[in-house]
Amino acid sequence: MEITSLLGPIVGVGAVIATALVKDVAISSLYGTSAVIIVGAGTAGAMLVGYPLKDVIFAFKSLGLYLNGPGHKADALITDVERLAQTARKDGFLALEKEVEKVDDVILRKGIRMLVDNTDPSVIQDVLDAEIAMLYEEEEIAAKFWEDIGAFAPTVGIIGAVLGLMVVMLNLQDQSKIGPGIAAAFIATIYGVAVANLFALPAGKKLKRFCHHKKVEREIAAVGVMGIANSVSPKVLVERMKGMAGH
Amino acid sequence: MEITSLLGPIVGVGAVIATALVKDVAISSLYGTSAVIIVGAGTAGAMLVGYPLKDVIFAFKSLGLYLNGPGHKADALITDVERLAQTARKDGFLALEKEVEKVDDVILRKGIRMLVDNTDPSVIQDVLDAEIAMLYEEEEIAAKFWEDIGAFAPTVGIIGAVLGLMVVMLNLQDQSKIGPGIAAAFIATIYGVAVANLFALPAGKKLKRFCHHKKVEREIAAVGVMGIANSVSPKVLVERMKGMAGH
Amino acid sequence: MEITSLLGPIVGVGAVIATALVKDVAISSLYGTSAVIIVGAGTAGAMLVGYPLKDVIFAFKSLGLYLNGPGHKADALITDVERLAQTARKDGFLALEKEVEKVDDVILRKGIRMLVDNTDPSVIQDVLDAEIAMLYEEEEIAAKFWEDIGAFAPTVGIIGAVLGLMVVMLNLQDQSKIGPGIAAAFIATIYGVAVANLFALPAGKKLKRFCHHKKVEREIAAVGVMGIANSVSPKVLVERMKGMAGH
Amino acid sequence: MEITSLLGPIVGVGAVIATALVKDVAISSLYGTSAVIIVGAGTAGAMLVGYPLKDVIFAFKSLGLYLNGPGHKADALITDVERLAQTARKDGFLALEKEVEKVDDVILRKGIRMLVDNTDPSVIQDVLDAEIAMLYEEEEIAAKFWEDIGAFAPTVGIIGAVLGLMVVMLNLQDQSKIGPGIAAAFIATIYGVAVANLFALPAGKKLKRFCHHKKVEREIAAVGVMGIANSVSPKVLVERMKGMAGH
Amino acid sequence: MEITSLLGPIVGVGAVIATALVKDVAISSLYGTSAVIIVGAGTAGAMLVGYPLKDVIFAFKSLGLYLNGPGHKADALITDVERLAQTARKDGFLALEKEVEKVDDVILRKGIRMLVDNTDPSVIQDVLDAEIAMLYEEEEIAAKFWEDIGAFAPTVGIIGAVLGLMVVMLNLQDQSKIGPGIAAAFIATIYGVAVANLFALPAGKKLKRFCHHKKVEREIAAVGVMGIANSVSPKVLVERMKGMAGH
Repeated sequence: MEITSLLGPIVGVGAVIATALVKDVAISSLYGTSAVIIVGAGTAGAMLVGYPLKDVIFAFKSLGLYLNGPGHKADALITDVERLAQTARKDGFLALEKEVEKVDDVILRKGIRMLVDNTDPSVIQDVLDAEIAMLYEEEEIAAKFWEDIGAFAPTVGIIGAVLGLMVVMLNLQDQSKIGPGIAAAFIATIYGVAVANLFALPAGKKLKRFCHHKKVEREIAAVGVMGIANSVSPKVLVERMKGMAGH
Repeated sequence: MEITSLLGPIVGVGAVIATALVKDVAISSLYGTSAVIIVGAGTAGAMLVGYPLKDVIFAFKSLGLYLNGPGHKADALITDVERLAQTARKDGFLALEKEVEKVDDVILRKGIRMLVDNTDPSVIQDVLDAEIAMLYEEEEIAAKFWEDIGAFAPTVGIIGAVLGLMVVMLNLQDQSKIGPGIAAAFIATIYGVAVANLFALPAGKKLKRFCHHKKVEREIAAVGVMGIANSVSPKVLVERMKGMAGH
Repeated sequence: MEITSLLGPIVGVGAVIATALVKDVAISSLYGTSAVIIVGAGTAGAMLVGYPLKDVIFAFKSLGLYLNGPGHKADALITDVERLAQTARKDGFLALEKEVEKVDDVILRKGIRMLVDNTDPSVIQDVLDAEIAMLYEEEEIAAKFWEDIGAFAPTVGIIGAVLGLMVVMLNLQDQSKIGPGIAAAFIATIYGVAVANLFALPAGKKLKRFCHHKKVEREIAAVGVMGIANSVSPKVLVERMKGMAGH
Repeated sequence: MEITSLLGPIVGVGAVIATALVKDVAISSLYGTSAVIIVGAGTAGAMLVGYPLKDVIFAFKSLGLYLNGPGHKADALITDVERLAQTARKDGFLALEKEVEKVDDVILRKGIRMLVDNTDPSVIQDVLDAEIAMLYEEEEIAAKFWEDIGAFAPTVGIIGAVLGLMVVMLNLQDQSKIGPGIAAAFIATIYGVAVANLFALPAGKKLKRFCHHKKVEREIAAVGVMGIANSVSPKVLVERMKGMAGH
Repeated sequence: MEITSLLGPIVGVGAVIATALVKDVAISSLYGTSAVIIVGAGTAGAMLVGYPLKDVIFAFKSLGLYLNGPGHKADALITDVERLAQTARKDGFLALEKEVEKVDDVILRKGIRMLVDNTDPSVIQDVLDAEIAMLYEEEEIAAKFWEDIGAFAPTVGIIGAVLGLMVVMLNLQDQSKIGPGIAAAFIATIYGVAVANLFALPAGKKLKRFCHHKKVEREIAAVGVMGIANSVSPKVLVERMKGMAGH
């Protein structure tokens, strides 16, 4: 559980509500049906134009990663690699066959299996690198999705605001409606800017960082595999992996 | 058929119309001849300044890719490469000559043909890499074209809005025309922002993603060719290609 | 002749004039002496601060490239390389000496001459790569120049608009001048945005693309030289060059 | 102590206060409770959405680096490397074991220890490169954190300003409140823009530069380790490190 | 003397003054004490937050480079390298010892000295590359400094404008002061935008280009050193250096 991911939106929305209270704006006047429609459906439309369905679904699923964080698998990974490296040193690569099923990490397991199958190390490196790059690319799409919501929501909000101002301008003769009309037009602006800046843009940034964290852990696993394949001393290998993990 | 590509613009335009309805703006007042002229012809002018005719035509043709998606040829490709790799292993490269005509993928066919012609593998690699890079560059232009429409439409819309406000300012004495005049000026803003954000910008993003997808499939084909050329074991080769394809 | 380069500005300016006509703005009111001064001389000042004289002159000369396009020399180039490669194969590098004077392309001629002089292929590669990079860098400056006009014109236009609004504000008591004063202030905005978006920015993009096209043709020539130097088979060499040229 | 880091905010805030004094704005009217809430808590909310707790804490700790500067360890480092290189030349790598504990720099100590342990030089290079990259990435996050405050504060300030303008619009009938209401709405804009431009954005830039400085010093240490490992002459090694340090 | 560097600011400021004259704004009303304070001191504050003192001083010293241009040392450099290469060819590297003191260029002198000292060519390459990269990085900071002034001046100007509008809003009852008050508020905007767009931003661009020019000349020197070290024929070496210099 990444506590800031829950706290952040609460603090942000709380700040808007508290400001309204201090300024004596009725909270109810912060709600606008048309603003919900234009910012909600308008941004949804833009995102459907921009992303295939598979990515849209994946982006919403990634809110789990946003809330829970990427976890910290580096320590377990390093322990696993150390044990495997020592086994390989003592009993040869074939002895890894029994161990490989207990390995949790996907990259490490895949790499060790190829090693057991006597695959050429440079091929293993290529396969693992390509897989890590591909996984990172896929996962990063969710981050871009939320950043794009952050890019489109405010501009779509402007469409709503301008539509609201058009209403005012077309009915200028009714002076009592000018003030409330402009106020209502502003709501779409607030929604667009708030959705973008209090959630979508920073959430995209956090997701990008979490994706990067996962990629680094996969790279540590790949370094472990290659270290075993090249018979690097377990001590040096562990030190190198710890360096990459920031210990 | 990529369903979101059809749904997206409908949801986006629907949001604008629904907002107008909720706000009691007559739908007819959303239409403005001068706004159509300035945003339509103005943006068209900018795009003609920015792109040679060949690219303009290609960009509109690419709406087919936007609507249909890039397809999923990776599986067929991997099956083809596996079969070719086994043939090459059993009967040598020359045996690929009969097989090569059945191959659907352009890159794979070109690479295998060069292999059959006994071309040096490093030359094959260079030729395929250059071709993949060139194709990606060409195809990505359509994505940039739509992103540029998204960049120019709102600024051109501003020209229309300012022209509209000029009319109002030159006729300030006629107070009954101020409101409708400003409202009319806003329409060009809405058109510019809507064209950009509800279609052109996100469609450009989706096209870029689809182009990338096609590039990855071509790279998988090239990896297949090089794997066969370097006599990599079919099992490992398939695993590597599947890794790149995200299986 | 690149027809879009002529058509684009006509369509763009036509859109502005048509909009003014539809909106019943007298075309004469689109002209403003002060707007011409601030956008014209102000942007010129910014460009002189930003670019040495040599680049300013070169940028205006590059309007020829903008209008005429980069041409399509790839086919002639490939024919030349094929002939040279066959001569080299049959009669050795020295036989190229008679042929080299007939070669049109600068890079190809330079490379073949070095080959005739018995220069080490890796040195030839370095020399040609450095030259191609340098030429591209020089030529791309014109594209950046026009893009920078597109960046500075609108902000300089804002200075003009604010100056115009200052006049209005300093003479608020004369109400009959408010409207025309604001309208006049807007003209500088229109000039700045129109210069940038209807010409300078997209023309910079097109020039960048044309520079890239010329670079690719030079790279094809360099690949041809290196292919001859490394005795690649003419057939494979032609195929590779065609791949790079997009045939 | 980096004197500009203390002076900068004083000069910036001083400029705002002096401007208010010259313009006869009571300093007290520069304070707004609601502006403090929306810009303070709103930006805090955005930053919590965007950064895990660990990074938030680290970003505030990095204000120490901002205030004190990165120091100048290069000279001491070069002296250390020169001494170690001469020892290694005279007495072999094992003789470095006694010296290594006196070494201050983490990268240098780690590298020399691996050398003493007879680790393969290419492995040492990989380990040190990975560690330097990881440390830089971690430290740079603080710079990005402050730059993001600079990105979010003004947009969150806009939410406050629009909320303030809504209050005015909902109470247009009370004309005496229009002026002060708009003035109050502006305060949130000033806070957002001032926080971003007078502190957060430039402080992020300075932190980025300081992180880069620390990375270069670590790279100098790594070059020193590799120079010793490869028995480069101490004189040449010192010259190279001085070149990197800008002496 | 780079004539455009002097002419540019004159033309830019002249355009502003001419516009004011044409618009019948008294030149004296373009001056605002508070605008000078907020844009001047405010931007200064931001720059002190963003840059260590050493960089601030260096950035102002770099105005000399802005005014005088980077010079054209390439021809002299190539002549020097040609002479050195011929000496080395005839009499060996040691014969360069007498020549090296006459060499003007720092990189060339340093490289030749290392050659005379019998340093390994790959080490010379590393040392020169690191030095060139470091020098470029240091010099480019001045360019970034001016670009950052261009980024901060307009936003700081907005603070001044909003402060000015606050004064107006707090004194709405005195209608005679509204116009002049808003006009005064606009001055800070003009100062910020003008400082940025008529000088700081484009001057930063020109400085960046000049820094690049100096880097290329240093790279030519390094190519010369390496060519001598690797006994490349003087004729080919000169051709290569001329290619890099754009002859």
